[in-house]
Amino acid sequence: MKDAAEPAIPVERALEIVLRETAPLEEERVALPCALGRILSEDIAADADQPPFAKAMMDGFAVRSSDVATVPIQLSVIEEISAGKMPLRSLLQGQAAKIMTGAPLPDGADAVQMVEKTRSPAEDAVVILERVASGANVAPRGRELKRGQKVLSIGELLTPARIGVLASVGRGSVTVRRRPRVTVIPTGDELVDCESAPGPGQIRNSNGPSLLAAARLLRAEVEDGGIVKDDSVALSQSIARGLRSDLLLLSGGVSMGEYDLVEKALEEEGVEIYFRKIAIRPGKPAVFGRKGSCLVFGLPGNPVSSLVIFAVFVASALRKMQGAPEVHPGALSAILAQPVSQRPGRTAYLPGTLRFADASVRIEPLPTTGSADLAAYSRANALYVIPSDRDRLEAGECVRVLPLDSTLR
Amino acid sequence: MKDAAEPAIPVERALEIVLRETAPLEEERVALPCALGRILSEDIAADADQPPFAKAMMDGFAVRSSDVATVPIQLSVIEEISAGKMPLRSLLQGQAAKIMTGAPLPDGADAVQMVEKTRSPAEDAVVILERVASGANVAPRGRELKRGQKVLSIGELLTPARIGVLASVGRGSVTVRRRPRVTVIPTGDELVDCESAPGPGQIRNSNGPSLLAAARLLRAEVEDGGIVKDDSVALSQSIARGLRSDLLLLSGGVSMGEYDLVEKALEEEGVEIYFRKIAIRPGKPAVFGRKGSCLVFGLPGNPVSSLVIFAVFVASALRKMQGAPEVHPGALSAILAQPVSQRPGRTAYLPGTLRFADASVRIEPLPTTGSADLAAYSRANALYVIPSDRDRLEAGECVRVLPLDSTLR
Repeated sequence: MKDAAEPAIPVERALEIVLRETAPLEEERVALPCALGRILSEDIAADADQPPFAKAMMDGFAVRSSDVATVPIQLSVIEEISAGKMPLRSLLQGQAAKIMTGAPLPDGADAVQMVEKTRSPAEDAVVILERVASGANVAPRGRELKRGQKVLSIGELLTPARIGVLASVGRGSVTVRRRPRVTVIPTGDELVDCESAPGPGQIRNSNGPSLLAAARLLRAEVEDGGIVKDDSVALSQSIARGLRSDLLLLSGGVSMGEYDLVEKALEEEGVEIYFRKIAIRPGKPAVFGRKGSCLVFGLPGNPVSSLVIFAVFVASALRKMQGAPEVHPGALSAILAQPVSQRPGRTAYLPGTLRFADASVRIEPLPTTGSADLAAYSRANALYVIPSDRDRLEAGECVRVLPLDSTLR
Repeated sequence: MKDAAEPAIPVERALEIVLRETAPLEEERVALPCALGRILSEDIAADADQPPFAKAMMDGFAVRSSDVATVPIQLSVIEEISAGKMPLRSLLQGQAAKIMTGAPLPDGADAVQMVEKTRSPAEDAVVILERVASGANVAPRGRELKRGQKVLSIGELLTPARIGVLASVGRGSVTVRRRPRVTVIPTGDELVDCESAPGPGQIRNSNGPSLLAAARLLRAEVEDGGIVKDDSVALSQSIARGLRSDLLLLSGGVSMGEYDLVEKALEEEGVEIYFRKIAIRPGKPAVFGRKGSCLVFGLPGNPVSSLVIFAVFVASALRKMQGAPEVHPGALSAILAQPVSQRPGRTAYLPGTLRFADASVRIEPLPTTGSADLAAYSRANALYVIPSDRDRLEAGECVRVLPLDSTLR
């Protein structure tokens, strides 16, 4: 049972412990169409020069620039080179080749004059109307990339452009860390399913759906463990099943009350508990432990508290599991739009609206009745931080902020 | 065939035309687990007061505050109320009820004293050690929400917290716009599949994989139309199939060359073309049209150009189809970290690194060789904009920026 006197540990220390206990998951190989949003776990090098040949950047005529030092001048057209074809002949003095964008330059040519600056008196002749410098409208071989050059690195997020890069160097599949499996178990005698009408004294389970969505947003494969009543046998059974995941999230049952059975059940199932209380507002009663390779969070039952603990701690663990570089939650800063206050002693994470204007970032605190006010929290796009040793922050101060659901907006 | 003299239209005008021709897709009903990241197409109201009853916010004792005006005072404990249970009796003068967090307050009680500020001399008695004000540690009925109050609005993005709100008001399913179906067709004789070794004059298809990923990131259901050679029959067949989607993306074949067959094939398949050139750098030869309810973009073949046109125009169309509020691409601004220049006449969208520090936003231009330099572009997390009438921007100037892949980071 929780010791009321046990001190709450600072947010920074709790985060250190969570990350210390979090290991990156195993690697797996995925095909490109499945690689979007995953974190690369290998370095990628160019397999060939890019472009692999000197390439026309315009539709026009490949020429020797020395031939067109004086214009207009008529050249004989020896062939036509379209993209995907190789030139059949080298260009000699007085010769030109009709060429299409993306096509390889013939040997001997060192520039392309665009079609708009030419005139074609006959099928096999062209008049070049303007001079063109050596190298003009030509991408030399290897301009973008040299063979063997590193193009992507371990830990990089696979965006659409990077998937294009992988395709361009011939990688139809890549090595990434596998997606974490997350089980969510909301607990409490008072909870009913969201499709049910709550009876007297009951409320609907909102933590289950919101935590499942939060985990999915971070690319987890989620499993809904279902509502578990305040019953130690049922709780132990559900926890035992949930411990087969990479990360188990419980909500509720972690306060000091006699019906707060989660921590005891976790210990009975062999989970080593690292901390039980964080000096955070909201969300103080938050349990963190591990059994084998499964991390376990016992989140508070209040809907806002559970989402705040998710945003600050669980999200960091899920990112590290997938091989993403560690980013401190709250690394961003913003100008506070109005004064805020709190009772000092805990670090507060409160809902606000982040606004960008004129290259500056402002945060507007949102009115809220507290940790049960999910409706107010749902209007926030960020949390702002009041340090534990401050009772008041003034308008215009620079505060730390943690954007919410940035992977959606 | 494209008229070389046809003027390129300004970016703003092109965007207006794209959005004018884009209609929101039909509505569909989805279950909560499928609602993440979708856009709500109905307003949502609270079905009951939240909380539905006056609720204890702490574990402790429900009391009449007038009884504890003088402390310490002993009260008789008449029952124990846990979360999910209703009180059986009203509290009379001199009485208290043991109560758990989340449990309904009994009639007559107006405050909760936390367990730490009490002493229990017997099973049926409690000594209250500190005074407690009326309303303390109690969430009155309806504090967070009143029945009928609007909690979510049409056009709002469904984040994890909003999914929690939906669950809390009994909505196991909601109405959203359906996901757009997008077909991607890369064209060009020079293209080979990314798993193949390019022959002489050939390059790998990178636009297909990157555009498919870009569309998926915006929640589209994508179909890979496969590489199509510069052959008008094959092109027409593929276009005809692609026109069954909500949005058809082709890349390549839109320049002025004789092998640039896309525009002609589109017209033959009955696509009405609205513009053929945009005054943008990179990406000038960009075709936009519509047949029935299918929007069609003919994107340039250069990998960076096609992704820029996607980011500025296609993304806006995909968002509008899903019912999201229109946000101008480039609404964000940042301080330019170093001077940049261009040949005026077109609006440039160039790769950069967006950095946030001390509540301000900076953009650092990335070195790039141009519109074929996908590797450089893949290092960018934003594009910065050089207006068409400017040839140079100085370090320290405030520039418009367009974050890339923000739905991933």
